[in-house]
Order: sequence, then C-alpha cells, then structure tokens
Amino acid sequence: MSTNEMSARERMIAALRGEPTDRPPVWLMRQAGRHLPEYRAVRAGRTFMEVVRNPDLAAEVTLQPVTRYGLDAAILFSDILTIPEAMGIDVTFPKGIGPRLNPTVRTAEEVAALPPGDVRGTLDYVAGAVRETRRRLGEDTALLGFSGAPWTLACYMIEGGSSKSYSLIRSMVYREPETLRSLLDRLADLVIDYLRMQVEAGVDAVQLFDTWAGELRREDYERIVLPSTKRIIKTLRDDGINVVLFAKHPGHLLESCISAQPTAIGVDWRVGMSHAVDRAAPHGISVQGNLDPAELFASPEWITRRVQEIHAGVGGRTGHVFNLGHGVWPSTPISGVEAFVAAVKGLAG
Amino acid sequence: MSTNEMSARERMIAALRGEPTDRPPVWLMRQAGRHLPEYRAVRAGRTFMEVVRNPDLAAEVTLQPVTRYGLDAAILFSDILTIPEAMGIDVTFPKGIGPRLNPTVRTAEEVAALPPGDVRGTLDYVAGAVRETRRRLGEDTALLGFSGAPWTLACYMIEGGSSKSYSLIRSMVYREPETLRSLLDRLADLVIDYLRMQVEAGVDAVQLFDTWAGELRREDYERIVLPSTKRIIKTLRDDGINVVLFAKHPGHLLESCISAQPTAIGVDWRVGMSHAVDRAAPHGISVQGNLDPAELFASPEWITRRVQEIHAGVGGRTGHVFNLGHGVWPSTPISGVEAFVAAVKGLAG
Repeated sequence: MSTNEMSARERMIAALRGEPTDRPPVWLMRQAGRHLPEYRAVRAGRTFMEVVRNPDLAAEVTLQPVTRYGLDAAILFSDILTIPEAMGIDVTFPKGIGPRLNPTVRTAEEVAALPPGDVRGTLDYVAGAVRETRRRLGEDTALLGFSGAPWTLACYMIEGGSSKSYSLIRSMVYREPETLRSLLDRLADLVIDYLRMQVEAGVDAVQLFDTWAGELRREDYERIVLPSTKRIIKTLRDDGINVVLFAKHPGHLLESCISAQPTAIGVDWRVGMSHAVDRAAPHGISVQGNLDPAELFASPEWITRRVQEIHAGVGGRTGHVFNLGHGVWPSTPISGVEAFVAAVKGLAG
Repeated sequence: MSTNEMSARERMIAALRGEPTDRPPVWLMRQAGRHLPEYRAVRAGRTFMEVVRNPDLAAEVTLQPVTRYGLDAAILFSDILTIPEAMGIDVTFPKGIGPRLNPTVRTAEEVAALPPGDVRGTLDYVAGAVRETRRRLGEDTALLGFSGAPWTLACYMIEGGSSKSYSLIRSMVYREPETLRSLLDRLADLVIDYLRMQVEAGVDAVQLFDTWAGELRREDYERIVLPSTKRIIKTLRDDGINVVLFAKHPGHLLESCISAQPTAIGVDWRVGMSHAVDRAAPHGISVQGNLDPAELFASPEWITRRVQEIHAGVGGRTGHVFNLGHGVWPSTPISGVEAFVAAVKGLAG
C-alpha cells in the first residue's frame, strides 16, 4: 500500500505489523478518562462500572479522545477486571481505594472451586460496546480491545484488590507454584475467549495489560507467568490477531516479553527507546511507547523535543506506535496531550 | 586484620569498605517488625510512633532480630518520616492506609515558608535511641542508622502520603523543577545533620533509603535527584562515614547510584548480583543484597540454593553485605529468615 493516502486505521495496523507508514500512528493508554471534561460529564452521577456496562455510554466515552485529539486508534473503554467478574467474583470500586474483589482466591481448593467462567454470556455487554463503538467510529480509525493478563488478574483476585507489595501472590510463587500456575492457566483460557470475542465484534488488535509483572524477578516471570502469556499470544496470533503485550517494568523483563512473540511490546517510560527497538526489531516485533505520562505536564517545546528524541531512538526502523510509557493521569492538562499529538503528527515515517 | 577472629561489627564494616571478610555479613532491611512475635508484643496497645519516640522501646525492638537470628548488624528502629516532622509537618499513620502528612508542600511559596527544621532538637529522641541501643548491643555488633533520601521524603511531603503514581511530584519535575530542587536541597541539609547526629550517638554506618527513585527515568533522576543525593554522600564520606544508598528499581538507575559514590549500593531483588558487582566493583563500591523478600516463603533448600547463587554472582570479590532486595514483609515466616541466615553463615568469604 502506498503510504501517501493511509487512513488512521491502516497506519495503526501497518505500524503494528512492522510495515512502512507515513508517520508513526499515535494513541494514549487510558486516553478515555478523567482528564477529559466530556468524560467527567458522562460520569457525573454514574459509577465507573455503569459506564463500562452500557454499550452506548462506553462507545461515547471511547470516542471522546479520538474526536478531541484526532488519534489514530480508539481503545475500548472497559476495565481489566471483567474476567474475574465472569468467574462470579464481585468487583467493586469503593471511592478512593481502588478495586475490591470478593471472594478472594488464595488456596488450591479455592482455585479448583472457581466456576468455569462464562465470558460470552457474562461479558456480552463488552461485545455490544465494541459493535456500537465500531458503528460510530466508522471504518477509517483503528479500534483496540484489551484484557488484563493472567498474572495481573491473579494479583487482584488473590490480594482482593491493589496492594503495596502483592505479598500474598508473590509468596505463592514460592509456596504454591502449582496452584498459581493452575489459576494462571484457567485465566489464560478465559482471556483467549474474551479477546476472540472482542475481535469478532470488531476490534483491529488487542492489548494484554500485565501491570504488575514488573514486581517479579526475570527468572520467576519466565518460570511462572510467561507460559500462560505465551499461550494466549500464540493462540491469538495463529488466528491472525495482532497482540500488544504491555508489562510495566523498567527494562528487566524486556527480553522475556519479546520471547513471548507478541506483534508489539509496550515500552515502559523508563526504558530507552533505542534500547527497546534494538532488542525487539531483530525478532520482527514492533514497539509502542514511551513518553513519560509526567512529561505531558511539561512545556510544548519539551514535549516536542522528547517526541523527536524517542523517534530518533527508533532510528528509521518500521514498527513504532507512538504512545505513553504508562496510562494518562487524571490530572493531565489537555494542552500537554495536544502538544504530544501535534508533535507526533509532525514527524515523518 | 585477620579474618579468623572477626566480630560481627568488624565483619560488617570490612564488607562495607570492600575489605576481606571470613564470610559476608548479614542483616535484613526492616528486620525489626511485625513478622516477629516479640515485636508484636511490644507494639500491643502502642502506636508505631510511640515505640519510635521512646528510646527504651526503640532499643528493645532494634535488638530483637539481632538476638533471635544472630545477625551481624542491628538497624535502628525508626521511621523515614522523622525529617518532615522536624520541619513541623504532622505525620500520622492511620490504620491500614499508610502515612499521612499535613500540611502538604506543593508550591514555591510553601517550600519557602517551611521552617528551617531543628533536627537535633526535635529528633533528640533518635540520638537517645541510638545511645541506648549501643549500650545494650555492646561493642561487637554493628549498628546502622538511616534516613529517607530527599526525593522519597519529598514524595511523601508533596503527595501527603503514599500514592499510586506520585503524579504531583512527578509532574513537578517538568512543571516546577526549581521548586523541587530547592526542596530537595533543603532536605539534603537536614539529612546530613540528622545522619551526623546518629553517627555521633553511636551508629557505625548509615543507609539512605530512596524508595521511590525508581519511578523516574534515569535522565530525570540524574538531573533532579542525584545532585542532592551526591552532596549528602560526599559530605558524610568526607567525614569518614560509611553510607549505603538504597533505591528501589530493577536496574535502570544502577549506574546513576554508583555515580553518587556511596560506600555501598543496595541491590534490588530484580537485578542480577553479578551484573551489579560488575558495575560497582570497578568504582570501589560495595554491594548489599539481594534475595527477593518473597523467597523467604520458599523451602530451606530453595533459600540455601539462592544464597549460594547470589554469592556466586559476587564471584569471590570483596565488598558484599548479604541482605534482601527490599524489606522483610510482615507475613514472613521466622523459619525462612532462619534458613536465610544459616545459609549465609555457611558461606566462605
């Protein structure tokens, strides 16, 4: 395809596949959220999950940042904790203290007693939100789906919410590795089904979020977590689905993530882009990232310079999706995002 | 000195200085704490700060793990938030939600309005606790003091407590670098005074805890944080004081921490020990670490094997203090710590 007349969707898919583009496509992790006044207006008087479970509202919120900023990709507005919900676990978000999951799953017996999980029945509203979003978005902009990765889902299911050190699950790595593997395997089955459902409903690619992988030593990540992650990625890619693997870590899991052979890896803000591309490109794996979310508070000049610096780190190689190194913060100024998007749009491929 | 008849204190100081030892000395970050039943007994009916502020109780708790496990070093039982307290900030620990600091310090005006901070007056109880601990500990075991590093203290002072992303201070890196630098400089002055006071009262070495440094890109760490950290270390080392710098990060700040020229660097559990020693040893800097706190939940065989693996990573070079890669978790089994200490004591220097 000529890169002269690429649509945003073509640009995004080409970059994921490592094909030439007119410029890097751009979207931002957690782009639909509290930093947008139009999002806060939709959320007024509604809980987070009320918006997630309503296909009309989810589609509306998904489109907000795309409309405002002219981004190349929308990412479905949803939550990473939908899969535990499909296993019959109650997920709530009490104000100011993050997610609460009940009951927790901490023993071999509790893992064995988990219901099989009916993703397509319980999470039908997610497929509905994808269909409605695609209908409103049209055919020229990419739409991304996502899921929490098994390790990160297991973190919340075992701890019962966020945690300072994730000591329950992290000690299970040594106390009860087989119980943990069994839970991760069951979660992997559901993640595969869930992401296939999203693709059937209309997303162009999916992202696996493994937010808490970085707590692990590389050896433990490879021993305990990587097998289920690899299986998800291989199964989906065999179906022709593009998969981005994002794990928050300042570099020590880079090679491990590459060895899972996703279409692209998300690059944490603390990793040098040239370092990441040097490692990913020889394996035909694209990269996504990696401005520090904090830098959206800097001057437009700073943001532009850093966008050019990251672009220079890619060094003319294909397969770069511009993004942040982690999600947009709720306090982020609109003007910072505008400067970021404008700077990326000013780049040549 | 012959290594045949080293006291624990001599062993610890020699290892910090990179001199030969009969075996690596061993202590554990956060060794005096909730994993010990004798600690929980002292804490019953008392707040954390009541124990910290009472030299008798602080000394008692400081000695508990040394007595139980036969460690080479005691570390003063205290808190990293004593310095904000000396600046007139109210520090409380509401149950289950971590520290709360009031008022917060977020603007140039608020930084300028901070009182100078009377470390020796306000924190006299810390000197008292050191003296009482030394009296009970005797002369043959090392005693370590510590302070929070300026960046980590500023994290709590600006955010008002713990935070998921430390977005207020992290955005200040770009919004108001001069205000932040000015706060870090003021904190550095107090940290120097505070650690000198601890040395005068009887500690053998001091550790700077920079828990949240790892959130920063290396370039920002070096631009904003390192100057004040370097100044603390240089001033103390010019006085002949041994300083350990611990920053929690899986490797991306390793060279930056080494460039601060501490006596030793703490090594995060996610960094390979041979990788760390390869980088620190050429600069004459010792290393401390780095078993994963989660591994204390493993079998004694696993722990012993991993202690030998870390020792092999040091590769016969001098200058290794055995420790964890982060603090002991409250849920840690006594038997795991016992296996760890026994395994280190079974090593040759």
